Amino acid sequence: MKKVDHIGIAVRDLNGVLPYYTETLGCPLLKIEEVASENVRVAFIDAGNIKLELLEPMNEESAIFSFLEKRGEGIHHIAFGVEGIEERMAELREKGVRLLNEEPKRGAGGALVAFMHPKSSNGVLYELCEKQ
Amino acid sequence: MKKVDHIGIAVRDLNGVLPYYTETLGCPLLKIEEVASENVRVAFIDAGNIKLELLEPMNEESAIFSFLEKRGEGIHHIAFGVEGIEERMAELREKGVRLLNEEPKRGAGGALVAFMHPKSSNGVLYELCEKQ
Repeated sequence: MKKVDHIGIAVRDLNGVLPYYTETLGCPLLKIEEVASENVRVAFIDAGNIKLELLEPMNEESAIFSFLEKRGEGIHHIAFGVEGIEERMAELREKGVRLLNEEPKRGAGGALVAFMHPKSSNGVLYELCEKQ
Repeated sequence: MKKVDHIGIAVRDLNGVLPYYTETLGCPLLKIEEVASENVRVAFIDAGNIKLELLEPMNEESAIFSFLEKRGEGIHHIAFGVEGIEERMAELREKGVRLLNEEPKRGAGGALVAFMHPKSSNGVLYELCEKQ
């Protein structure tokens, strides 16, 4: 893995949290979008060398809803930016890493994404993210 | 905030976790050091544009020990790289952010560091980190 693309952060109220990032921390808002397949509304914040991805559940079906119920607001995942995501997934499987996705799926910004099981990664939820 | 310096990750057994980062993920180990004042042993992993800081408690006095007891292994904090840490701290205080440190303290690599209270940051523990 050669770079981190973004850090995912679970929040309850995206609009309520945004001024903390844009005004208090002074990090620009890049865009807001809905990822219907994941039931999340997402804001991308520019933290200079990486992005912060604020994730608000759109409904109770969202994995972010479950995370907030269990853990409360906070850091959710770290996403590595990769090229050739299917090859990277195959390499990780060969090395014994358990993946949460059989195939890459569409994430925010139309990227192809896949997640590694936190049990393979000492408690950290890592994502592979390939921009299209 | 203009860049993220590192992401802190709490682990129980640093030596046991290192091969996952260096071999499975293919991220080089930069260095290992003990930060006696914080009661942690720290490994810096090169993730390309940022570092991953693996934190193992040296004893039960460590804040990382308490974190592991409460939350288990996982992502602990996000550190912004800053210049003029005391001025940044003053600016944040003026904006109503609660800081966990009155003054910057010495962290890993001799950096000056200070933490923002997660209650000010919607559940995220943010660090300010100034390299010397």
